[in-house]
Amino acid sequence: MRKKMLLAGILILSTGFCLFAEDGDMNSWEFAVDMIWLFIGALLVFIMQAGFALVETGLTRAKNASNIAMKNLMDFCFGALVYWAVGWGFMYGADAWGGLIGASDFFKGPMEVTGEAGGFYRSWFFQVVFAATAATIVSGAMAGRTQFKSYLIYSCFISAFIYPIQGHWIWGGGWLSKLGFYDFAGSTVVHSVGGWAALTGAAVIGPRLGKYVKGPDGNLSVKAFPGHNIPFACLGVLLLWFGWYGFNAASTGTAVGAGGSILARVAVTTCLAASAGAVGALTVSWLWFKKPDVSMTMNGILAGLVSITAPCAVVSPGASIVIGLIGGVIVVFSVEFIDKGLKIDDPVGASSVHLVCGVFGTVAVGIWGNVEGAALGLLHGGGFAQLGIQLIGVLSVGGWSGLTSLLLFTAIKAALGLRVSPKEELMGLDLSEHKSEAYTGFQIFSNM
Amino acid sequence: MRKKMLLAGILILSTGFCLFAEDGDMNSWEFAVDMIWLFIGALLVFIMQAGFALVETGLTRAKNASNIAMKNLMDFCFGALVYWAVGWGFMYGADAWGGLIGASDFFKGPMEVTGEAGGFYRSWFFQVVFAATAATIVSGAMAGRTQFKSYLIYSCFISAFIYPIQGHWIWGGGWLSKLGFYDFAGSTVVHSVGGWAALTGAAVIGPRLGKYVKGPDGNLSVKAFPGHNIPFACLGVLLLWFGWYGFNAASTGTAVGAGGSILARVAVTTCLAASAGAVGALTVSWLWFKKPDVSMTMNGILAGLVSITAPCAVVSPGASIVIGLIGGVIVVFSVEFIDKGLKIDDPVGASSVHLVCGVFGTVAVGIWGNVEGAALGLLHGGGFAQLGIQLIGVLSVGGWSGLTSLLLFTAIKAALGLRVSPKEELMGLDLSEHKSEAYTGFQIFSNM
Amino acid sequence: MRKKMLLAGILILSTGFCLFAEDGDMNSWEFAVDMIWLFIGALLVFIMQAGFALVETGLTRAKNASNIAMKNLMDFCFGALVYWAVGWGFMYGADAWGGLIGASDFFKGPMEVTGEAGGFYRSWFFQVVFAATAATIVSGAMAGRTQFKSYLIYSCFISAFIYPIQGHWIWGGGWLSKLGFYDFAGSTVVHSVGGWAALTGAAVIGPRLGKYVKGPDGNLSVKAFPGHNIPFACLGVLLLWFGWYGFNAASTGTAVGAGGSILARVAVTTCLAASAGAVGALTVSWLWFKKPDVSMTMNGILAGLVSITAPCAVVSPGASIVIGLIGGVIVVFSVEFIDKGLKIDDPVGASSVHLVCGVFGTVAVGIWGNVEGAALGLLHGGGFAQLGIQLIGVLSVGGWSGLTSLLLFTAIKAALGLRVSPKEELMGLDLSEHKSEAYTGFQIFSNM
Repeated sequence: MRKKMLLAGILILSTGFCLFAEDGDMNSWEFAVDMIWLFIGALLVFIMQAGFALVETGLTRAKNASNIAMKNLMDFCFGALVYWAVGWGFMYGADAWGGLIGASDFFKGPMEVTGEAGGFYRSWFFQVVFAATAATIVSGAMAGRTQFKSYLIYSCFISAFIYPIQGHWIWGGGWLSKLGFYDFAGSTVVHSVGGWAALTGAAVIGPRLGKYVKGPDGNLSVKAFPGHNIPFACLGVLLLWFGWYGFNAASTGTAVGAGGSILARVAVTTCLAASAGAVGALTVSWLWFKKPDVSMTMNGILAGLVSITAPCAVVSPGASIVIGLIGGVIVVFSVEFIDKGLKIDDPVGASSVHLVCGVFGTVAVGIWGNVEGAALGLLHGGGFAQLGIQLIGVLSVGGWSGLTSLLLFTAIKAALGLRVSPKEELMGLDLSEHKSEAYTGFQIFSNM
Repeated sequence: MRKKMLLAGILILSTGFCLFAEDGDMNSWEFAVDMIWLFIGALLVFIMQAGFALVETGLTRAKNASNIAMKNLMDFCFGALVYWAVGWGFMYGADAWGGLIGASDFFKGPMEVTGEAGGFYRSWFFQVVFAATAATIVSGAMAGRTQFKSYLIYSCFISAFIYPIQGHWIWGGGWLSKLGFYDFAGSTVVHSVGGWAALTGAAVIGPRLGKYVKGPDGNLSVKAFPGHNIPFACLGVLLLWFGWYGFNAASTGTAVGAGGSILARVAVTTCLAASAGAVGALTVSWLWFKKPDVSMTMNGILAGLVSITAPCAVVSPGASIVIGLIGGVIVVFSVEFIDKGLKIDDPVGASSVHLVCGVFGTVAVGIWGNVEGAALGLLHGGGFAQLGIQLIGVLSVGGWSGLTSLLLFTAIKAALGLRVSPKEELMGLDLSEHKSEAYTGFQIFSNM
Repeated sequence: MRKKMLLAGILILSTGFCLFAEDGDMNSWEFAVDMIWLFIGALLVFIMQAGFALVETGLTRAKNASNIAMKNLMDFCFGALVYWAVGWGFMYGADAWGGLIGASDFFKGPMEVTGEAGGFYRSWFFQVVFAATAATIVSGAMAGRTQFKSYLIYSCFISAFIYPIQGHWIWGGGWLSKLGFYDFAGSTVVHSVGGWAALTGAAVIGPRLGKYVKGPDGNLSVKAFPGHNIPFACLGVLLLWFGWYGFNAASTGTAVGAGGSILARVAVTTCLAASAGAVGALTVSWLWFKKPDVSMTMNGILAGLVSITAPCAVVSPGASIVIGLIGGVIVVFSVEFIDKGLKIDDPVGASSVHLVCGVFGTVAVGIWGNVEGAALGLLHGGGFAQLGIQLIGVLSVGGWSGLTSLLLFTAIKAALGLRVSPKEELMGLDLSEHKSEAYTGFQIFSNM
C-alpha cells in the first residue's frame, strides 16, 4: 500500500497530471477523500471566472462593462455545454490517430451509482473549469470592439476543439505526454492556449479606435485607456490567486499519500511565486515609470502565477521565488512591447500574462525543475533533453492553437464580421450590443 | 460495510436529504471526512449571502444600495440567532402533532467533545445557511420602499417559524417526507418558500413610486428602473453559482461511499443546468427584445440553478440541460408576466427565479427523475404517483408559506407600517433610513 | 487509537493551537484528511485579504482607492517572502533564550516527498496567511496620508519580526504558552498585534487634513469622511466572515477525532458571535444616533468575530452570543472614543475592532471559557488564575507590539518620512503616489 502510493507520487510528478486518482472502490477512504479534494479544486478554479470578469471589467472602460460581464458568463455557459458534448471526448476519449486526438465518450452520462461513474463525473467537473479558463482569457484581449455573437462562436470552438485536442496530447495520454513533456497544471495546456487565442484575436480584430493615432509629424502615438474600476481589478486578482491555489494544488489529482505531500509544496511555491511576481513588476515599473504602477503590479501577480503553473510541483520555494520574480519582470516588458512595439491592442495584457509567461513557465521546468527535481527522478528527461522536450511542447501547442485561432477568427470575420461599427464602438458595447448601461444609477446620481 | 454504504446511497437519493451522516464514532475516517464535507458545503451556502447582496444591489438603484446591504447582513444575523433559539427545534426537534412540527432541542448547545455533539453542531451549521437563503430572497423583491425595522421583523419570523415548520414536513421527518415527497436540495423547501414570501411581500407593499403610471389615455404604462451596477450583479451571480455547488452537492449529507459518487453527479448536473439556463434566457430575450439581455441572462443562470436543485441527484447530464434550458425560458416569460401582467413590482425578479422555477424544479423530479431514476429505484413513488406526490408538496408548502407570509406582512403593515413615506422613497432609503449614502465619494469625484 | 485522539482533543483545547497534527505516516487517512483541512483553512484565511481590501476601500475616499488596493496586495506579497525567509524561523524554529524566540528553519524548503516535508509545507502555508492578516490590519488605520514606500517597509518588519516573535511566545511553544495562556485562533496573537500597530501608526502619522478643525470658538470640531462605496464594504465584511470560519475552525489544526467535533462547535460559536455583534452595534447605534448605522453595524460583525476568536472552542453557543453582543456594543463606544476622545484618526475603526475587541476576547476566555470549559478540563488555569494569565498575555503582547511598532514608525518617520505632502494628500494618493485614478471611467461617464 505504502509503496503503491509512493509510486503514485512519482507518477503524479513525472506525468504532470493524474487524471483518475482511484476509480475502483467507492467505499474506500481514498475515494471519499479525493472526491472532496477534486470538488474543492474544481470550485476554486470555477471562481477564477469571477476573477477574470473583475480584472477585465476593472482594467477596461465603463461603457463596455456589461458586455464584459456577458462575455465572461457566456463563454463558461457555452463552453461547459460543448465540453460535455464533444470536448471531453476529444481530450480524454480513447486515443486515436496515434496520440493526436481522443475519440469516444461524447455526451457521456452514466446513471449508475458506482465508483467508476463517480470518478467520471468528478474528473469531468474538474476538467471543465480548466477548459473554461482557457476560453475566458481571450475576452479581455478583444474587449471594447468585438461583436457579441462572434465572440460566442469563438467560445464554442475553443472549448469544443482547440483546447481539448492539444489537451489530449499532454494530459489525455497523447503524443506529447509519451515524449515526456511536463506541464503540471497548465502553463502551456491552459494559459498559453488562451494566450495564443488572445494575441491572435487582438491582432485580427485590430486596435480600438483612437488607440494608435498618427500625429501631424507622421509618428504613431500610443494612447492609454486607463481602466475604470481599480478596486474591481484588485478583487479580481485576489480571486484569481485564491482560485489558482486549487488550479495548481488540485492538479495532483489526489490528496492521498504522496499527493498530499506534493500538494502542500505546490501551495507554497504558488504563494511565493505570485508574491515575487508582484515584487518584480512593482520594482521594474517603479524604476521605469518612476511610480509604482497599479495595473502592472497586478499583472505581476498573475505573471508569477502563470509562470509557476507548470513547474510548481518540482521546484523548491527558493526557485519558485526566482521564477515568479522573472515572470513579474517579463510581463512589464512584454506588455510594453506588444502595445508599443507590435502595436497590438490587448487592453488587459492577457497575451503577456498568459502566453509569454506561460511559455516561460513551461521552459522553467527544463531549467529549475531539472536541477532540483532530477535527483529525485521527478522528470522523464534530464539535462538538456528535458529542456528540449519542453520546447517541442511549446512550439507544437503554439503552432496548433495559433493557427486554429487565426483560422477561426479570420473565418468569423469573413462570414459574420468580428467587429462592431465605429459608431457602436464609440457609443460603447453596453448600449450598442445589449441596450443596457452598466452604471445607470450613477448618471442619475451625479445629476442630483 | 460496503452493503451498508450502498444502502445509504439509495437512502440519500430516495429521501432527498440525509441529515445525520454518521454520528457514532468520532474517531472513524467517515466522521472526519463528513465533518469537512459539510463544513465546506455550509461555507459555500454562506457565501451565497454575498451573491444575493450583490445581485440585489446591482439590479436596483444607487440610492438604496446601503439599505440593501444592511437588509442582507441583518436577515442573516437575526435569522441565525432565532434559528438557534427556536427554528432548529421546530425543524429537527422530536416530531409532534403527527408530522406537523418538531418540538424539542430549542437553545441547544452541548459542551461535550463527542461524536454526537460534533454531529449536532455540524448539522446546525449546515442547516442555518439554508434557512438564511430562504430568508434573504425577499430582500430584493421588496427593495426600494420597505421600512428597515419592518423588514427585520419579517426576517425573524420566517427564520423562526415559516421556514422551519415546512422544513420539518420534508427534511425533518414530517408528513411530506413520509408520503415520499422528494426535494433533494430545496427547490421547494428553500427557494419556493423564499419566493412565496417575496411575491406576497411585493404584492402587499405595492409597487415603487413611478413604476406603473396611468397615461392620459387611461392606460397603465410600465416603467423599467434599470440596475445601477451590472458588474456587481455579474459577480453576485457567479458567487451564487459557486455557492450553489455546495448547496446541491453537499445535500448528499455525506461524501462517503455512494454519497461520493452522487455528489460528483450533482456537481455536473448543477453546472450544466445553470449553463443551459443562461442559454435559454439569452436566446428568448434575444429573439423577443432583439438584443441579448443582460439581467435576463443572469436570471437565466439562477433559474437553471433553482430548477435543478430538487432533481440534481436523480437525473442525467442530458436531462439537466433540458431542465435548465426550460427554467431559463420560463424565467423570461415569468418576469414579464409578473411585471406587466400581474403588475406586481419585484425589482430583481426574485419571485420568478425562486418561486416559479422552484415549482418547476420540484415537478421536474416527477418527470425526468421518474424516467431516469425509476429503474434505479431512486424514488419512492414511480410513474404518475411520484408526480402527484410532488404536486401535493408544492401545493401544501405553497399554501403554508403563502398564507403565513400574507398574514405576517399584513399584520406588520397594520401594526407598524411596512412602507416608507413617498418623500423618503424618492430621497432613497440610504438617506432616509440610515442617514448615509452608498457612494459619497463619487459625488465629490464627479465635481472635480 | 481512540484514547490518543481524545487526548489530542484535550490538547487542542488546552494549548489553543496544535501546529503539527500528524507528520508521521503520509499514507494514513489522517494525513490526507488534515492536509485537505488545513489547505481549506489557509485558503479561507487568504481570501480575508480581499475582505480587508474591500472594507478599507469602501469605508474611505475614492481618491485613495488604488492606493488601498496596492497596500493590501503588497503587504501580503512582501509579507509572504519575509515570513518564508525569517519569520517562520523566529516563530516556529527551535526555542532559544528561554522561550523568547525561535532560531532555526530560516529559508526552509525540503525537496523530498515525505510526510515530514508535506507537514512543513502544510503548516507554513497555514501560518503565512495568519501573519498576513496581522500585517494588513494597519493599512486601513493609516489610509489617506501614508507614503507607499514607508508602508512597504513597515509591512516587511511586522511580518519578519514583530508578529513572529510574540507568536513564538504563544503558538510556537514559548514562555506564554508554558504559562498556560490561551488564545485559540488569535484574538491576541493576530488581531491585537495588528490593532496595536494600527493604533500606533495612526497616532504617529497624525490625522488626515481637515479631520479635526479648530473653530473660531477655539473648540475642535470632528469631521466625518464617509466611505465612498458601501457595497464594497458589505462584500468585504461577508468575505471576512466567510474566511473567519476557516481562521477559527481550522485552528483546531486537525479534523481528526476530537478535532472534528471541536471544529463544528467553533463554526457555530463563530457564526452566532458575529450575528450577535451586528445586533449589538445596530442597537446601540440606533439608540444613540437615532438611525441604524451602516458602518457601525458592519464593524459590529467584525467585532463579534474578533471577540470570539480566542474563546471560540471553549464556550457554548449561548456564551458566544453574549460575547459577540458585548463586542458589538464595545466597538461603537470605542470608535467614538478613539475618534472624538483620543483624537486619533483611524478611518476604518481598525484599532477598535482588532485591538479593543481582541483584548476583550482574550479576557473573555478567563470568564466564560473558565466557567463552561473548566468542568471539562479544557483550560490549564482555572478560576482567577486563568483570568490572570490571560491578562499577563494581553499586557506582554501589548507591550511588545506597541513598543516595537512605535519604534518602527518613529524610525521610518525620521529616516524617510511617513506622510505625503499636504498637496499630495489633497490630490489623493492614487494620483500622487501611483499616477493613476481608481475610477477614470466614471468621470468620462458623467461628462456624457
